[in-house]
Amino acid sequence: MIHNLTVNVPGQGLHDITDQVKQAVASVVSDTDIFNGLCTLYIQHTSASLLIQENYDPSAKADLESWLNRLVPEHDPIYTHTIEGPDDMPAHIKCMLTATSLSIPLVDGGLALGTWQGVFLWEHRHSSNSRRVIMHVGR
Amino acid sequence: MIHNLTVNVPGQGLHDITDQVKQAVASVVSDTDIFNGLCTLYIQHTSASLLIQENYDPSAKADLESWLNRLVPEHDPIYTHTIEGPDDMPAHIKCMLTATSLSIPLVDGGLALGTWQGVFLWEHRHSSNSRRVIMHVGR
Amino acid sequence: MIHNLTVNVPGQGLHDITDQVKQAVASVVSDTDIFNGLCTLYIQHTSASLLIQENYDPSAKADLESWLNRLVPEHDPIYTHTIEGPDDMPAHIKCMLTATSLSIPLVDGGLALGTWQGVFLWEHRHSSNSRRVIMHVGR
Repeated sequence: MIHNLTVNVPGQGLHDITDQVKQAVASVVSDTDIFNGLCTLYIQHTSASLLIQENYDPSAKADLESWLNRLVPEHDPIYTHTIEGPDDMPAHIKCMLTATSLSIPLVDGGLALGTWQGVFLWEHRHSSNSRRVIMHVGR
Repeated sequence: MIHNLTVNVPGQGLHDITDQVKQAVASVVSDTDIFNGLCTLYIQHTSASLLIQENYDPSAKADLESWLNRLVPEHDPIYTHTIEGPDDMPAHIKCMLTATSLSIPLVDGGLALGTWQGVFLWEHRHSSNSRRVIMHVGR
Repeated sequence: MIHNLTVNVPGQGLHDITDQVKQAVASVVSDTDIFNGLCTLYIQHTSASLLIQENYDPSAKADLESWLNRLVPEHDPIYTHTIEGPDDMPAHIKCMLTATSLSIPLVDGGLALGTWQGVFLWEHRHSSNSRRVIMHVGR
């Protein structure tokens, strides 16, 4: 069972897509008889990635962003791939360090997220973008 | 096929859960006719994560821990999310850099781990904790 | 549905295995009636890992390699696990920061890779190696 999600993001940062993913899962559950199984998210990009993280306190999200921006700064003289702008090579490196695919069990018709867990799309470019995430739900 | 694992950890560090996972897989295999498929582990926390790593030489495990502790130290002035203690924000960052979900093929009724591979739960807090890992086995 | 891939690599670096994976997927699709599902790759090693990244411009690949080599250098005095050579402990750390398993949706009989995405095996040792990757395809 495949479902396509489009996520429109205004620019760089962690964007909470938990509600959008839950709605897509609910739609799959109502269309099929899959109540227990596995939901896999896959992002079709190399400058945006996926993350499961705390979604309660916004300061945790802000610190993840500032920590990773410091580890992978723009204008690092090590970069030779600079033709697509100063935020492009850092975006690829940040994708390398985070996830392109994520799997979350489906239990009793809902995602088995922990109490404090949310699903985030991490946009690594400064520009606004429309990102494609493919959701697979299997038994 | 969903199976819940509870992992009790005494504190920060890599905890080998290979045997516990293998026992859970054996239980699923004996309850079903799934001998070949995919086993996915999912941890329901944002301050503990999952890792496949060498489980032969304890010095490799110790070096992974000390390297990551140096990369993500406590009391970094960049942190604003400090209300839950000095080990909380580093824990979230360490989870970001490691895995929340892992999938391992099931072949002939057993996990297809490589010769030197073990499955670890990485506790990033100092306190003892009871962590929940959900295992999904599909065809 | 399990398929074994052997990847022979000449030494350290990102090796594009997209074509090899696509051929294996095509073989599974022609042997079964699975046209939509999920393809999971699992590498049975702790000193080589998997990555989805841009496969268009070779400079992006080179920068990923040089950035990670700088973050995780050889001969770091923090290492105690040195018996297997100076590139061994860095290899384990690089695996920790990248992926041991990756899942890519299968849509209409083909891998749903994004336009610029390729699948890479990242060899972290200097020596040539024969690496085993297990592919699972499920509905």
